Amino acid sequence: MDKYDVIIVGAGAAGMAAAIYTCRKQLKTLVISVDIGGQTILTSHIENYPGFTKETPGYAEGPKLMSLFQEQAISYGAQFIAGKASKVDKTEGGFKIALTNGEEYETRALILAYGKVPRSLGIPGEDKFIGRGVSTCATCDAPVFKNKTVAVVGGGNSAIEAAELLTKFATKVYVIHRRDAFRADEITINKIKQNKKVEFVLNSAPVEIKGEKFVSAVVVEDVNTKARRELPINGLFVEIGYVVESDFVKHLVKVDAMNEVEINMAAETVCQGIFAAGDVTNVPYKQTGISAGWGATAGLSAYNYLMKLEGKTGAKVDWG
Amino acid sequence: MDKYDVIIVGAGAAGMAAAIYTCRKQLKTLVISVDIGGQTILTSHIENYPGFTKETPGYAEGPKLMSLFQEQAISYGAQFIAGKASKVDKTEGGFKIALTNGEEYETRALILAYGKVPRSLGIPGEDKFIGRGVSTCATCDAPVFKNKTVAVVGGGNSAIEAAELLTKFATKVYVIHRRDAFRADEITINKIKQNKKVEFVLNSAPVEIKGEKFVSAVVVEDVNTKARRELPINGLFVEIGYVVESDFVKHLVKVDAMNEVEINMAAETVCQGIFAAGDVTNVPYKQTGISAGWGATAGLSAYNYLMKLEGKTGAKVDWG
Repeated sequence: MDKYDVIIVGAGAAGMAAAIYTCRKQLKTLVISVDIGGQTILTSHIENYPGFTKETPGYAEGPKLMSLFQEQAISYGAQFIAGKASKVDKTEGGFKIALTNGEEYETRALILAYGKVPRSLGIPGEDKFIGRGVSTCATCDAPVFKNKTVAVVGGGNSAIEAAELLTKFATKVYVIHRRDAFRADEITINKIKQNKKVEFVLNSAPVEIKGEKFVSAVVVEDVNTKARRELPINGLFVEIGYVVESDFVKHLVKVDAMNEVEINMAAETVCQGIFAAGDVTNVPYKQTGISAGWGATAGLSAYNYLMKLEGKTGAKVDWG
Repeated sequence: MDKYDVIIVGAGAAGMAAAIYTCRKQLKTLVISVDIGGQTILTSHIENYPGFTKETPGYAEGPKLMSLFQEQAISYGAQFIAGKASKVDKTEGGFKIALTNGEEYETRALILAYGKVPRSLGIPGEDKFIGRGVSTCATCDAPVFKNKTVAVVGGGNSAIEAAELLTKFATKVYVIHRRDAFRADEITINKIKQNKKVEFVLNSAPVEIKGEKFVSAVVVEDVNTKARRELPINGLFVEIGYVVESDFVKHLVKVDAMNEVEINMAAETVCQGIFAAGDVTNVPYKQTGISAGWGATAGLSAYNYLMKLEGKTGAKVDWG
């Protein structure tokens, strides 16, 4: 069985930033992930990653930014494999990670950075029409809805960005949101408010998705009056946040009510040798730049932990 | 008196990342700083900022990365002024900031991101010879020591990077460090170990700097045996970390023994409406990417705070 100094589960901004840091400390590092780039590659337009400006090649393209992260990690020696972790066990020298395909890897330290998966609405018709009009990825599926009518559910940046992108293809875009205020950036909201293709359906929640073979309508309920009405649509984009799949490691770390892994300021979990970073943790904001910072923190803490095991000085103080 | 939604004290990675975030939330933002770029512009070679790779214009140049941060902040509306904060007072609507030049500004929320200043050795000769052979900035002063002998004091990345840079100019570079292990990255240390110009003076501390008009020698003491010896040098670079100048705001926030401002996971201080990010805080590692992440966090928390004051929903949950 291959043995690593550090295994990182997840290859989004947090996981790859962690890999850059552990590899620069010359720790043998393996990144195991179902994808490369995590949530950032689903962002149609990333304008707020510090330093990633109009001068940068591939400006504002999430996938480009993530490929830069990966190249950088690989240039310092990071290894990547595609796979999904299914089980973590403590061993004498660290941890054993089993993947769903049966492969096993050993590591001295572990960094959890597997992010989140889209939250579902949990309403009738959602499962039936997934891929038949129901989508969780506007970037992937928007072009399919050329000259059609669509609805976006949600009020955060990803919902508003999805709506903005969809206006480039669809003839009409409903934005269904259960409140009358948005969590998205003012600058993003104001842009979309000018767009005549967009109709806001506020204080409303979807309660059922209807159709034959494909989606044909969504039933929305006013959260105050409970009045229902049917909007004729061809597509529904669910953008209401994410859930964390922490079951494979829950027996070793502490998770909160949302299944987020609890960490301290040094990205340490309650389990010695296990660190966590990015969207998978209980940090308050989920942003590419913030996740990258936490990934770097987890990488340095993993290094400190391993140095301490060997009785050496770590990178604890200041410009480590 | 001009009144802002957010004033950010400091324009390093943390301060400018905070400005990018507050401006994108359309908050009127002023950045007050003695410099632009903070510690990052003193880095000769920054290889570990995630996404800043060989493909990026100005790759690895700290000043270039910081100018990208500033352009980005300005493009979203941030205002910058040169100045040093000398006093902060609570007002009815927020805070009043006085600068050393007598100017005053009012703000509803305040983000502290003023970083650190180099720590001094506190030994005889240090003050006398500052600018006459004693330096805290290798990037600035290395070329002055062409064909000379220099010493670097310290064991972190900045000390080793300073030594590496100095080998390009000086004929000999002593690295004086009070331990026998280094906090710097393995990859950086290994590179310098190959260099025949470098001589390590380990388990040793400088105790006096000698000279007439300019530095001519440093006296070092073995930390174990207390034996002293004199190294003939023309220049001494002090790279032993940094101190935090928090006196102007200490009466409002909580600082630790090192004068670092204490924050929680949301970059909040104990004072409502004051946030802090980057090297000025008690976060364990001081790195450009980590500071940028904390700046973004402080920016979002300042936004949430102001929204809450107005009775609106903030950016609390997930992809705000």
